[in-house]
Parts: sequence; structure tokens; C-alpha cells
Amino acid sequence: MQLITVGTVAFDRIETPFGVAEKTVGGAATYISLAASVFLEKLGLVSVVGDDFPEAVMGQLRDRGVDLAGLEVLQGKESFFWAGRYHYDMNSRDTLETRLNVLLELDPKLPSAYRSAPYVMLGNLDPGIQAKVLDQMTERPALVVMDTMNFWMDSAMEKLKEVIARVDILTINDAEARQLSGEHSLVKAAQRILTMGPKYLVVKKGEHGEDVVDPTGAGDTFAGGFIGFLARTQDHSFDNLKRAIIVGSALASFTCEKFGIERLIEVSREDIDARIQQFVDLVEFDIELTAD
Amino acid sequence: MQLITVGTVAFDRIETPFGVAEKTVGGAATYISLAASVFLEKLGLVSVVGDDFPEAVMGQLRDRGVDLAGLEVLQGKESFFWAGRYHYDMNSRDTLETRLNVLLELDPKLPSAYRSAPYVMLGNLDPGIQAKVLDQMTERPALVVMDTMNFWMDSAMEKLKEVIARVDILTINDAEARQLSGEHSLVKAAQRILTMGPKYLVVKKGEHGEDVVDPTGAGDTFAGGFIGFLARTQDHSFDNLKRAIIVGSALASFTCEKFGIERLIEVSREDIDARIQQFVDLVEFDIELTAD
Repeated sequence: MQLITVGTVAFDRIETPFGVAEKTVGGAATYISLAASVFLEKLGLVSVVGDDFPEAVMGQLRDRGVDLAGLEVLQGKESFFWAGRYHYDMNSRDTLETRLNVLLELDPKLPSAYRSAPYVMLGNLDPGIQAKVLDQMTERPALVVMDTMNFWMDSAMEKLKEVIARVDILTINDAEARQLSGEHSLVKAAQRILTMGPKYLVVKKGEHGEDVVDPTGAGDTFAGGFIGFLARTQDHSFDNLKRAIIVGSALASFTCEKFGIERLIEVSREDIDARIQQFVDLVEFDIELTAD
Repeated sequence: MQLITVGTVAFDRIETPFGVAEKTVGGAATYISLAASVFLEKLGLVSVVGDDFPEAVMGQLRDRGVDLAGLEVLQGKESFFWAGRYHYDMNSRDTLETRLNVLLELDPKLPSAYRSAPYVMLGNLDPGIQAKVLDQMTERPALVVMDTMNFWMDSAMEKLKEVIARVDILTINDAEARQLSGEHSLVKAAQRILTMGPKYLVVKKGEHGEDVVDPTGAGDTFAGGFIGFLARTQDHSFDNLKRAIIVGSALASFTCEKFGIERLIEVSREDIDARIQQFVDLVEFDIELTAD
């Protein structure tokens, strides 16, 4: 395995001001694995679903190189379900319903082929479960990237900090960086968080998109593209991290264009390259220094 | 004149969590002119002060090439005074006191040498006064840049929109872009504002600084550096606007390092170049496209 990912695999019900998706496939590990599969051939997924989860979607994942030996299927049980409603700004949202279902029984046991994976993505999930995945690795992975959210800061801060101390890169949004550090200034927040263990912090600022149909999964897609690109290039230099951020952002922009995984699953390398080129054209600059 | 600037010239009382400046020289036109003077030799300033305004500061402005024929001095009157207190985050602030004083009598009459200036900076001020400056230009300037704030959107929206329709570039912050356009998404807000007249919109996002002692004047310093660089290079291409934004941001970062104009007035070309180089090192990237 080049990369293993732990996270939710779920059904989502999504309401936006522009439409409703009644029951769409989602979950952090789903988005992460699909995004990373753009760059990798052998990925492992660690999660749990009920027997209601569609075999067709598992087939699509396998077609993209995602091994499902780490995906437990619990017979007679229902998959994790989340329902949310986006506000008109498409940036903030309310959770309408959370049915943990099989997630309550997730006690990850890594297949042996997963335990020496050089890249590990800890998707947003109970930090206790993220820790159990790290515990089962037979050697220190080359790179561990962790995503989390404010819910765990509110409910399990001490456990969360234990896991954060064990990872290389943490990805959270700006409000979460402030909450985790207790600092308002993002510069100070980042400095504080970097004393907690991670070598790098990626602060996601999600609000500026065009033609956003459904932002669900954008952060997960970013993380998957980010770690997938790093695993492909095996280069953890700051310059390459910057490239990985651009690649992850480009992938995330596709996820937002349709509900659920619809757009991500059909994205081509050429689509991604065209989006990256648009970004490069926008931000590229050359500047001569001003002193005479 | 290469550039004329209209705006306030003022005394400020500034409280931050880290200190208090009882009576420091400030005002939009002061910061703008000082910043632009880094790039220009002949600048005009249009404003009004009382006879309490220090001759020494006027001398400093003149030493930097700022012509004060457009600065009216009203005998027996007091200069505009603003007092504000920054919150712990150094980003949001409360106005504690505003004494308009001489500002109530500002009825700008441009010296004839000002009326054909190719570059015009409308600093944050009553839009009626901004309009009076444009009315007195004998020909359409090559470039008019306008700054404004939420206060004028609350109190004089119609007049404000009339002036916005006459400028080339508008600089406001993200909250103001949302208020002016009635759109939450910044992408949509920008699209809407570009139908109101300006060719370009610069959205300032001021919150991320290190070692911030006093953010007062940062937006004005940005605007001054921005238009000063454009006036110096006489190149209004999108690529050069990007350079001007970097230069203006670098200058603004110096303003924040001390109270009032203290740091800006001593900044050298070499200081600016070093700061720009830091920025370039941080954001520069090269990326190869991913398609095989």
C-alpha cells in the first residue's frame, strides 16, 4: 500500500439553497481515497459500513485502485448517516441529523498489508480511532497527515492533542486553528500549534468559490489530493508542499461543482491540469525589486 | 504633479492591548502621501488642518516631495481628531471619539498645478468631497483609485455609488464588499461591484500580521504604495496591478510595526525590497502539470 486512509464512509442528505440530494454517498475516507487515487495505484481504506452500502460504489472505488480489505461491512446494520443544510452563503452549515449507526462499532484492525504503508491519512473522526490506526503501524510512516474539526476540540480535546502530537501535518480551518491554540491571530495560532507536535500546519480558508453546488467533502478532497500528490512525488520539501496545496485545492474545486462524489469520480488528469493552469495564470507574478 | 491625494490629515489617539499613543499624527492622506512618496517626486495633498498641526510634520512631508499647496490651514481651529481602541485580536476596533473640527469646513479647491495630475487617489472621506476633487480635474486622469468604508455605505450610499461609478479601481475590505454588493460570496460581490463602474476591485483582508503594534493606517499605506507604484511605472496591466498589490502590502506591513507614521516615515527602499523578497520566497512556486 502506498497510502492508507481512515475515516468515515457514509450517506449524506444535503440541502443547499439550490437543491437537495436525498441520499448521496459521502464520508471523509471516500473523498480522500478518490482524490488520492488520481496519483496512486494502491490505496487502503479503513472504515466501516452497513450492508446498505451500495456494491456499485465499492466497485468504483476498487476500479480506482482503492483496496477495501480494511472496510468492514456489518450485516444487518446501517451505514453512518449525516444530514446538513447550507446557508445561502454556501460556507456555513447546520447539521440537521447525525445517525452514527455502524460508526459506534468501528474498532479498526488493519490488514497486514496496510501496516507498513509509508503514507497515512487520518481523516476527520474520533481521535481515539485515529490513534488506534497509528498504534498498529509496524514502523513510523514517512508522513502522517491528520484532519480534524471543532467537534473533537469541544468534546475530546485531551485525546485530540495526544494524536496531534504524533502527526507530521495537521489540516484544519482558520476558526479551528484559533480554537485549538487559544490565539486569535492566525500567525500566533500557527506558532502555538507547531509547538504541539506537527511539523506543518495547513490552514484551510474555504469561502471563496464560484459555481458552488455543494461544498460537502471539499476539505476531505483537498486532504486526499494533498497527501496523494506527496505520496506520488515522495518529496516533503516546503516547495513541494506548496505544490501539493495547489493540487489539493484544484481537486476540491471539482468536488464543489456537483452533489456528493459525482464530479470527483469523473474528473480527469486533463481537467485537473486545466484548473491548475487557471490558478497559475491568476496568481503568477514577477516583480523586480524597487531600490535604484 | 504626478499624483494628487485627497483625504484626512489628523491627530489620532490609539489604544491597543500593548500600549497607548496619546496624540499621534495620522489621517488617510498622510499615510497615502508618505507611502506614495517612496516612488514619486511630485505629489499634491488636498486636505485641511487647524493651526495646531505641527509645522515639523509638514516639513517632513515636504522633504518627501509632498506639495502642501492643497492643504488648507485654518487659523484658530483644531485639526480632525479620532480616538480608537483595538481589541486583543488587533483586527477589530471601536471608535471612542471623533471630533470632525476643521473637517466640517473642507471644501477642496485644487491648485491649478493639481488639476491635470494623471493619478488621483481619493482617500476615505465623505464621497461628496471625493466628487468635488474629480469635478475640478481639467482632463480625465489616467487612473483614479478610491478608498472608502462602511460608514459611508450606512450614511451616504447613493452619493457613494455616484463616485464609485467614476473611478477605475476601488479598494475596500471583504465585509465592505459584501455590504456594498449585498452578496455574501466574495466572488459574486466582486462581480456585482464591477458592474457599478470600476474596472478593478481590490479586496483587502487585513487580519494576518506578525508583530503588529498598531494597524492604524495600514489600508491607507497600502493604497498609497499601490497607486504610487502604478504612477511610477505607468503600467496598468493586470500583471503590474499584482506587483502594485505586493508593494503596497509590503509598505503596509511596516506601518503596523510602530504607532502612527513613525515606522513608515523612516522606511528605506532597501527595507521594502527585503520585505518583498520575504514574501516572494514564501509564495513562489513552480508546478508541473500532472497529466502523464
